[in-house]
Amino acid sequence: MGNILVGQSGGPTAAINASLYGIIAQGKENMDIFEKIYGMRNGIEGFLDDRYVNLSDTINADDLELLKTTPSAYLGSCRYKLPKDINDAVYPRLFEKLNALNITALFYIGGNDSMDTVAKLSAYAQTIGSDICILGIPKTIDNDLVEIDHTPGFGSAAKFVASAVRDISMDSHVYNTKSVTIIEIMGRHAGWLTAASLLARKDKQDNPTLIYLPEVPFKLESFYRDVEEKLAERNNVTVCVSEGISDEHGVFLCEYLQAAEADTFGHKNLTGCGKLLENMVKSKFGVKVRSVELNVIQRACAFIGSKADIEEAVAASRFGVQAALAGETGKMISCERDASAETYTLRYKTVPVSLVCNREKKFPLEWITKNGTDISPAFLEYCTPLIMGEMQLKTENGLPAYCYLK
Amino acid sequence: MGNILVGQSGGPTAAINASLYGIIAQGKENMDIFEKIYGMRNGIEGFLDDRYVNLSDTINADDLELLKTTPSAYLGSCRYKLPKDINDAVYPRLFEKLNALNITALFYIGGNDSMDTVAKLSAYAQTIGSDICILGIPKTIDNDLVEIDHTPGFGSAAKFVASAVRDISMDSHVYNTKSVTIIEIMGRHAGWLTAASLLARKDKQDNPTLIYLPEVPFKLESFYRDVEEKLAERNNVTVCVSEGISDEHGVFLCEYLQAAEADTFGHKNLTGCGKLLENMVKSKFGVKVRSVELNVIQRACAFIGSKADIEEAVAASRFGVQAALAGETGKMISCERDASAETYTLRYKTVPVSLVCNREKKFPLEWITKNGTDISPAFLEYCTPLIMGEMQLKTENGLPAYCYLK
Repeated sequence: MGNILVGQSGGPTAAINASLYGIIAQGKENMDIFEKIYGMRNGIEGFLDDRYVNLSDTINADDLELLKTTPSAYLGSCRYKLPKDINDAVYPRLFEKLNALNITALFYIGGNDSMDTVAKLSAYAQTIGSDICILGIPKTIDNDLVEIDHTPGFGSAAKFVASAVRDISMDSHVYNTKSVTIIEIMGRHAGWLTAASLLARKDKQDNPTLIYLPEVPFKLESFYRDVEEKLAERNNVTVCVSEGISDEHGVFLCEYLQAAEADTFGHKNLTGCGKLLENMVKSKFGVKVRSVELNVIQRACAFIGSKADIEEAVAASRFGVQAALAGETGKMISCERDASAETYTLRYKTVPVSLVCNREKKFPLEWITKNGTDISPAFLEYCTPLIMGEMQLKTENGLPAYCYLK
Repeated sequence: MGNILVGQSGGPTAAINASLYGIIAQGKENMDIFEKIYGMRNGIEGFLDDRYVNLSDTINADDLELLKTTPSAYLGSCRYKLPKDINDAVYPRLFEKLNALNITALFYIGGNDSMDTVAKLSAYAQTIGSDICILGIPKTIDNDLVEIDHTPGFGSAAKFVASAVRDISMDSHVYNTKSVTIIEIMGRHAGWLTAASLLARKDKQDNPTLIYLPEVPFKLESFYRDVEEKLAERNNVTVCVSEGISDEHGVFLCEYLQAAEADTFGHKNLTGCGKLLENMVKSKFGVKVRSVELNVIQRACAFIGSKADIEEAVAASRFGVQAALAGETGKMISCERDASAETYTLRYKTVPVSLVCNREKKFPLEWITKNGTDISPAFLEYCTPLIMGEMQLKTENGLPAYCYLK
């Protein structure tokens, strides 16, 4: 008998608590092996300060069900980077705490940076001969993890983006005048989420008209030419741009506007290119221009969560608990499509976390068309199954009921 | 036998097509009296250019059902102001067109400005002895029409605002550090929609912490003091501000940032105060600050539409057709709560459109508390019934199916 410890790290998604739900639900189903399930408050950083909760005792069955569709990170999050030096004093301190709680399985839910934490912890565990199973549960709206078909959290964000881009485009379509609408979408250096705006297009003639991903250097002259050409063809041009577009010198467009700040992992705060382009297009073409930054709502909106995404997040973390039971460690839970199945079918597996951490899966260049202004239909085939279905949310006073940490 | 003509005007809402649905559905049920239902393309402006569609022949039953939850304005919209001078040549030209199409009932769906159009048209009709019934169907997310309990479109926007403010606040809550989140909400000079952010607060301690409406002059020093005080009490402060907040001299905060542009009705483009406050708070307090402009998604999002709102929009315009059958003209369809009913019950009625047009219903000062930083619970009682319920949307490929003008 031992205990589970689970933590959440990095930016929240609409599915990160579904991942937590999967760990708790599967952990409870294996109470012959796992006695208690502890949750780190604010990830590994909070755990180092002895901030954790006993999840097995505090979440009842009703709350657990609500947790599945509760947005944000229930346990809180952190952006704490473990030291590179494996001889740093933080490691023995951490494992002392793990052993004191009799932890036998540790799950860390997060993206690239969180997988870096999993890799370091499992490497250290090996050096000291600890048999704690340390596993990463993938989560990111950016869909930029390697060695996995797609990441939990991406489907819900993609569904929000597709739905919002369609609704905004229709809204901007009402006046019989020329207009440009610029929609700024998250995704950091990878264009996956911006590409999901393609799902908004109901036929060839429909918006979005132009889609710019960070995988192709953004050239202002080409952009002006593209907009001019499209404005000549149609009244309303919707342009979707990734927050991470950069020019041919690698300078982020949003850096033109402000000194981009960096977080503890050295990542710059990338927002504002939509507003910048709005002003540029306005002064260049004199038409009505509006920019919309989808901002954190695209990762936080429970009402527009994808059922497929939520269910896959649960399945992946349930698989994670089973992998721990089989003694696996130093791995991330991954998934692949069953190529032999007639309809979309996902299979779960594990991959060495060392292959995943600190790497980024870019949007495939072969799916970027028309000189970097459009996305190939092949992406639709890839992405559509991920946004299918809606969760039936329990509501209170007209709003979704959520589960909150007491 | 005569025909119906219907138009949509001003900014779209999630319920403006539900209003159109009501006219068409009720019109079709009275085909003994109304032979055809025509729709103006881009409101009165398009109709003057002979741009209209025959709705009775082009929308089938399936499409009509989809229309109810289709966002944006199906017929297109305009911001066209009819001349004040009733002797202007546009009036006889318009009525010639109305008579040529044998229009006996004209419905104009819109807000204050659209009611101005209804008032002018019905006044002119009276001078020439025309018996065309001209009626206004209310619509605006701003909820700023007088002589009505609340406007169709407000409930859905309020539901989006409440849901987004809760989800964004939860998202900003994940890190164990001080942060301020500023959410900019629409509503022009009236605070109704910003006040709806109160619905996001699940208990007294919850966000949003500070709410600023345009009804109270915005003082920067008081704002700084409020934020400082709240930051001392808690980690994460969500501030909701109306796009239309202005200082004690009546200068819109967003005007500090840019020369606010004006539309044909002389209304300034009010956006950007959230970003301005973000920069101010950042440099003043040095904490993490994020601003989120809810932008057009708050009026366009079908996924988060309020069932109560959609159904009331339908009921109001059905009532409008019945009012035309009773020979009423120069009126706006209005509603009031049945004070004698135990639960929320709405009654429809008509009010003279001349009482409504060019006036604004401000948010009641007695519902603004704590020196202009919070909203009274009395507003919750008023607003909660308006956001109740969700429409079951038909979806295609994971997104809502809509009805489009061919």
